[in-house]
Amino acid sequence: MRYASRIRQMTSKASKAWDIHFIALEKRARGERAILLTVGNTDFASPEPAVAAVHKSLAAGRTHYSTSADSRPLREVIARCHAHKTGQMLDADQVVITVGAQNALLSAALCLVEPGDEVLVPEPMYVTYPDTIAVAGGEIIAIHSPAGNRFHPLVDDLEAAVGPRTRAIFLATPNNPTGAVYTREELSAIAALCHNRDLWLVSDEVYGEFVYEGRHFSPSILPGMAERTITIGSLSKSHAMPGWRLGWMIGPQEFANHANQIAFCSTYGVPTFLQDAAIAALERFPHGVPELQAAYRRRRDRLCDRMKSAPLLCCHRPEGGMFVMLDVRATGLSAYDFASGLVLEEGVAILPADDFGHSATGCLRINLGVADAEIDEAALRLSRYAERICQHKAVT
Amino acid sequence: MRYASRIRQMTSKASKAWDIHFIALEKRARGERAILLTVGNTDFASPEPAVAAVHKSLAAGRTHYSTSADSRPLREVIARCHAHKTGQMLDADQVVITVGAQNALLSAALCLVEPGDEVLVPEPMYVTYPDTIAVAGGEIIAIHSPAGNRFHPLVDDLEAAVGPRTRAIFLATPNNPTGAVYTREELSAIAALCHNRDLWLVSDEVYGEFVYEGRHFSPSILPGMAERTITIGSLSKSHAMPGWRLGWMIGPQEFANHANQIAFCSTYGVPTFLQDAAIAALERFPHGVPELQAAYRRRRDRLCDRMKSAPLLCCHRPEGGMFVMLDVRATGLSAYDFASGLVLEEGVAILPADDFGHSATGCLRINLGVADAEIDEAALRLSRYAERICQHKAVT
Ligand SMILES: Cc1ncc(COP(=O)(O)O)c(C=O)c1O
Ligand SMILES: Cc1ncc(COP(=O)(O)O)c(C=O)c1O
Repeated sequence: MRYASRIRQMTSKASKAWDIHFIALEKRARGERAILLTVGNTDFASPEPAVAAVHKSLAAGRTHYSTSADSRPLREVIARCHAHKTGQMLDADQVVITVGAQNALLSAALCLVEPGDEVLVPEPMYVTYPDTIAVAGGEIIAIHSPAGNRFHPLVDDLEAAVGPRTRAIFLATPNNPTGAVYTREELSAIAALCHNRDLWLVSDEVYGEFVYEGRHFSPSILPGMAERTITIGSLSKSHAMPGWRLGWMIGPQEFANHANQIAFCSTYGVPTFLQDAAIAALERFPHGVPELQAAYRRRRDRLCDRMKSAPLLCCHRPEGGMFVMLDVRATGLSAYDFASGLVLEEGVAILPADDFGHSATGCLRINLGVADAEIDEAALRLSRYAERICQHKAVT
Repeated sequence: MRYASRIRQMTSKASKAWDIHFIALEKRARGERAILLTVGNTDFASPEPAVAAVHKSLAAGRTHYSTSADSRPLREVIARCHAHKTGQMLDADQVVITVGAQNALLSAALCLVEPGDEVLVPEPMYVTYPDTIAVAGGEIIAIHSPAGNRFHPLVDDLEAAVGPRTRAIFLATPNNPTGAVYTREELSAIAALCHNRDLWLVSDEVYGEFVYEGRHFSPSILPGMAERTITIGSLSKSHAMPGWRLGWMIGPQEFANHANQIAFCSTYGVPTFLQDAAIAALERFPHGVPELQAAYRRRRDRLCDRMKSAPLLCCHRPEGGMFVMLDVRATGLSAYDFASGLVLEEGVAILPADDFGHSATGCLRINLGVADAEIDEAALRLSRYAERICQHKAVT
């Protein structure tokens, strides 16, 4: 049977990187102590007010189809939080509620990108980006973000890649997997490029509350950028609510109208009782959960400090986000081989980061969403494993 | 700023049909008794086991990203229910969980339809269909379903409409808005057409539990059809859970693999704690909630019986579904003018059905999702209003 050609353009076949994860799960099932630092989940529980709001809302029978009017209260809260954080003036009608940031990414792509269009994305990039753009019929032009430049892309490289079919730049700041937090200067240069070449800017800011160096900057507030910027947010990271599937996008009014039409035939909205939970979470923690941010900063420092003494391994201390990139190239092993050995010999599962893009070659992405004690134990095992490789290298 | 051309192809601009709904809401806000029979919501509460399962699941911290393994239990329950209802043999891996049937419709379109493709759909059709197909880049060829043929399409008309770019037939049985329940014979003829012309069949069976005449028949079990049929289901109707956004599709294994890839970048799955609720609902009521089905049958009969004596109005007693089509052509008024007068003079809001397709011209769609007493009162007011029109006609 025949499928649409976008299916052939989608690339994310089952990646062998996830083998690492499954080996660790099997170890666990056998009763061995395995530490999983692969999936971007968090050890934090979702906020109590969100859970309480669901109970209250369900008891009140808020189980009907959600209308545009129904979503107004949540859109107002999101608009208020966004305005407060960024200084952007906006109306609640510019906010579109989506089934997580992932759904926002696809809806934005469907609104802006059509077959034959090109989209520039700095790599390493979150692994769903290529397929998301492919579903809309577009093609990603990946822009190198050199490890030597703190995994920031060079604006000159972006500029050089713009062609007649370039329609948009998608970027994530802070980045997944690198944690790079783009500066005001970099984003101003990117904004100027968008202006000069008439491009949309889709700014994925789901990690915006996790910044350890510098400040998170939202390009929507740059002069003339509100009309061509889509800002994407979510409760998944900031509020430890990944499984709730609650996100949004903010853009110019015309975009919001179109995106709502897309949402209508894509998901028909988000459950009202989950919208109530989102309101409760955002009212209690308008800037994300402070303990969560503190924990990730502490774990980042803890891990990077402990890894300093490990031979052949180099931690890129991230500027933001929820991951640490570990460069293992000095071991002479590929990221995958290093990760395989590590999980088999030491029971620590870390994701080889190659799938995120060429700039991540030889790096592993370590998820910080586990307790401090697990971070410490992982660091210990990592060091031990690296030392064995080091001795083995010395011998052979 | 420029948008993708699919946005221009989407047609569902704010329909004036919904004016009727808002007039009634305003009346209600002024304290007048208004009866709303517009939106496809239900007066029934969602099943208690579903609500209890959410509480339990949230208490257990099931708030992380949902993986394919996580969704296996729900997929197994859905596969079992589907097998039991239809006799189709299937594996749980052929089931794809979606954010309601609406999300299944879009995902199916994205998998099967590409720019330039045509999709045949019997009209009247559920109003999101045209935009859903447009998002995928396809075009709908609407097939007339004559009121005189109980709103069933003629297979000859379908056959005549197949062209070189026809890729699929989408249909809903029972239908929204007409309630037409396609017979085994009709579906066999449609299946033969799909076979001969190499078409996919997308069978939207969200109203499959609401059948009053004949039997619901699922075309997937016809010889050779499992490999080219996508069956779409949902808890919205059968379990009074519209706001929960829980649906699914069942298709051949290759389709399911592609659809899961689409789901991955479209929504990243359905909350685990809502999947737990879906399991509870399906285990308690594997064939939908019997009281719900009984209530809708009773209301259908009640309404149609009471309307028999109304002058100039003709109820099409539906074979299934959750609506009654009321033909007002004999009044000389358009459906919209009739509905406007009715809501202004009698406070009863009913949706003019013209937006569902040409075959529905002059009809109103009456939602049966209100208490019997409201049905009775609506019938009374409808008759009174029709009598006034009748007298007015006699005078002028
Ligand atoms: C950069 C980035 N964008 C979007 C998402 C998706 O977030 P959500 O859970 O809100 O769909 C992720 C999830 O890991 C991410 O890393
Ligand atoms: C024929 C038809 N298909 C699909 C849907 C969407 O159902 P869900 O709520 O599961 O998205 C509806 C809703 O009214 C419908 O009438």
